[in-house]
Amino acid sequence: MTKDVWRIGVAGLGTVGGGLLKFLAERPSFAPAGGKVVVTGVSARSKSRPRDFDISQFAWFDDPVALATSPDIDIFVELVGGSDGPAKAAVEAALKHGKPVVTANKALIAEHGAELAALAEAQNTPLLFEAAVMGGTPAVKMLREAMVGDDVSAVAGILNGTCNYILTEMEAGSRPFAEVLAEAQRLGYAEADPTMDVGGFDAAHKISILAALAFGCAPNYAAAEVEGIDQIELLDIKLAGDLGYRIRLVAQATRSDEGVSVRVHPTLAPVGHPLAETRGALNALFIEGKRIGRIFIQGPGAGSGPTAAAVAADIADVMTAAVRPVFQAPAAKLKPFDKIAADHHVGKAYLRLLVKDQPGVIAAVSETLAEVGVSIDSFLQKPVENAGGVPIVLTTHATPEAAILEAARRIGALPAVLAPPKMLRIARV
Amino acid sequence: MTKDVWRIGVAGLGTVGGGLLKFLAERPSFAPAGGKVVVTGVSARSKSRPRDFDISQFAWFDDPVALATSPDIDIFVELVGGSDGPAKAAVEAALKHGKPVVTANKALIAEHGAELAALAEAQNTPLLFEAAVMGGTPAVKMLREAMVGDDVSAVAGILNGTCNYILTEMEAGSRPFAEVLAEAQRLGYAEADPTMDVGGFDAAHKISILAALAFGCAPNYAAAEVEGIDQIELLDIKLAGDLGYRIRLVAQATRSDEGVSVRVHPTLAPVGHPLAETRGALNALFIEGKRIGRIFIQGPGAGSGPTAAAVAADIADVMTAAVRPVFQAPAAKLKPFDKIAADHHVGKAYLRLLVKDQPGVIAAVSETLAEVGVSIDSFLQKPVENAGGVPIVLTTHATPEAAILEAARRIGALPAVLAPPKMLRIARV
Repeated sequence: MTKDVWRIGVAGLGTVGGGLLKFLAERPSFAPAGGKVVVTGVSARSKSRPRDFDISQFAWFDDPVALATSPDIDIFVELVGGSDGPAKAAVEAALKHGKPVVTANKALIAEHGAELAALAEAQNTPLLFEAAVMGGTPAVKMLREAMVGDDVSAVAGILNGTCNYILTEMEAGSRPFAEVLAEAQRLGYAEADPTMDVGGFDAAHKISILAALAFGCAPNYAAAEVEGIDQIELLDIKLAGDLGYRIRLVAQATRSDEGVSVRVHPTLAPVGHPLAETRGALNALFIEGKRIGRIFIQGPGAGSGPTAAAVAADIADVMTAAVRPVFQAPAAKLKPFDKIAADHHVGKAYLRLLVKDQPGVIAAVSETLAEVGVSIDSFLQKPVENAGGVPIVLTTHATPEAAILEAARRIGALPAVLAPPKMLRIARV
Repeated sequence: MTKDVWRIGVAGLGTVGGGLLKFLAERPSFAPAGGKVVVTGVSARSKSRPRDFDISQFAWFDDPVALATSPDIDIFVELVGGSDGPAKAAVEAALKHGKPVVTANKALIAEHGAELAALAEAQNTPLLFEAAVMGGTPAVKMLREAMVGDDVSAVAGILNGTCNYILTEMEAGSRPFAEVLAEAQRLGYAEADPTMDVGGFDAAHKISILAALAFGCAPNYAAAEVEGIDQIELLDIKLAGDLGYRIRLVAQATRSDEGVSVRVHPTLAPVGHPLAETRGALNALFIEGKRIGRIFIQGPGAGSGPTAAAVAADIADVMTAAVRPVFQAPAAKLKPFDKIAADHHVGKAYLRLLVKDQPGVIAAVSETLAEVGVSIDSFLQKPVENAGGVPIVLTTHATPEAAILEAARRIGALPAVLAPPKMLRIARV
């Protein structure tokens, strides 16, 4: 499979595509395995859109599927995005034609990874997606290749830089969610429609992929439990801070005898914890293995440079002609994704209430918690101006989540409680 | 190259060899590429030494070279150790016979890596050594494969768990070096002859390997500047702490237009810095690239489980039949190692003096510093019991090291100064 020249077709010419074209123009012989990497064809929605790089020397394809199956390319790079539509059609077409595919498309892999893996493996063709998760930080390679001598029991981390930027800006500037989001949109850190990011769906795509790599199961985005940061109030960031925590959007996948769970939630991490200390647009990930113990990795999760570097590393990998399954096992042998029932989770929680300023409230709340068997770890009542009531915050010991949710429901129904309690999970340390 | 059964020969049956045998017995089909991995032959210094694992079902070889070249093995695993002698002879023999080699031997790769790479590449045979650096934490794979789409300018980290354990124990317990070392030896965390670890040589082996992977130059252990932790006094740990620093043994490799430098030094890292927060036997590494920016990775650097898992991951890599050079470029194309002259380094420093308790000392010291153009960043004079004088500590702004060393020499010659100043470097943040 070693060639002197590797011809690349690139579909999608946004910032990552542009970064890749510039890198390959500058360093066509970057790959250690030898051989020159040359872009021959490109495709994008608009040929004439102004770009800060020249595409006139490449063959233009209106249709990414035509590019993907062109006899003039050896590797198809998919940077179009989206779980379906042209991205999926082009990747499928390339794989069916036995062309190696490198993609940064987390939605595609998270939602259709198992069927695409089967296609790729049937043709003995690589399908690589390092850039889909954590940008330039090689989480995919670590789980796919470096951890195979271990049994990974959990991966957990910060996988969405936009959310982390918003949360740390809220924290640092005491500014509400909407104001920071609007600023992030002005600065280009958040999309015009921020739902994928702030709703937690982008992180859910990524953790679904990591779960498949870590546990040898098929990616199952539909099974992810997802909660975003759009309901995080500044009040909670401040009160969590008073208790020694910072709020982060944590994506986690765990495996136990009972099955697999994939979850994205705003989560309290204690100050000093590496996730609490991960600020701005950085990404971070813990990997926990039976033999290796804990590995922590932190780095840039997005951006043209890092993401294009990850795509280039995947191209170099294709050039080694390595034969390995797309995930941790061949597609036909991927384990079923036995989802752990949501109400089987056990963990510590943060409950924040707004109560009327009257006697007996604390007694009523603590009696309600005792009724459902939730025991209190810490308790804070603090006057906060303009909070519309007296905020009370408590954290629990590790408890089945079902009990915490039931406690929250019952507390919300107490006459002295002004609004349904806000429940946030606390990270396992 | 895909086989149904891969026959492994293991030379060296210490804790890592034992961990590997147990893992392969438990999970012979662990490799994603498929195929069963079966140990067929073993070799060690003593056949009869008591072990907590059974070797009776394996063919025994007194001579590791005979094992390495046996027609009954497909992959040779070298866990003997040592830069020369039987380890080198066996690895060379295996490669000459076209047998893939997996080794945990940092001394061998750091001192003979380029010639072994040439041997391996001549036979188109893999030579893998993930377990040689940071145990189960995949620093080698990251640099060799994930960073090839970037230009790495620096790698720096904590690569010796024994030193980090000793330094953090000194720090936590206010105990002197010799006492903690003796305890570490009793507990089996340090060797009977601790020179390789506490002298910095083990870390120098490892950073030499990482430099070759990061920069595409031949490993050049002989060019490393090495200083260990055996001269670190508790007094310096305390005074550094007063200034907001912790002392760590930092191994770093940098590349600039001027060349390459590989250095191991006790180094002050500010509290809160991820290296300062790396405690006990953990290892940690920063990788800095032009495109990706900074990646940080932290994990266990030694131990039977993590190291055996790294060896197993390398075996799985061999099974993919990937063809890539041993380092960042084929052996014949490795760049020369242009060493940056030691006196060209620029950095901040910590200088600790013991002076007589008399007037005019501070004036004399600061005049001496001004003479050689070293400017002071912070200054601390503090009475310390039984220090044999008054300790004065100062930190400098970034300065050429040559000037700092000259300042230290002149200060040491001042009549009021009781002993040669202790100079320690401060980490770039």
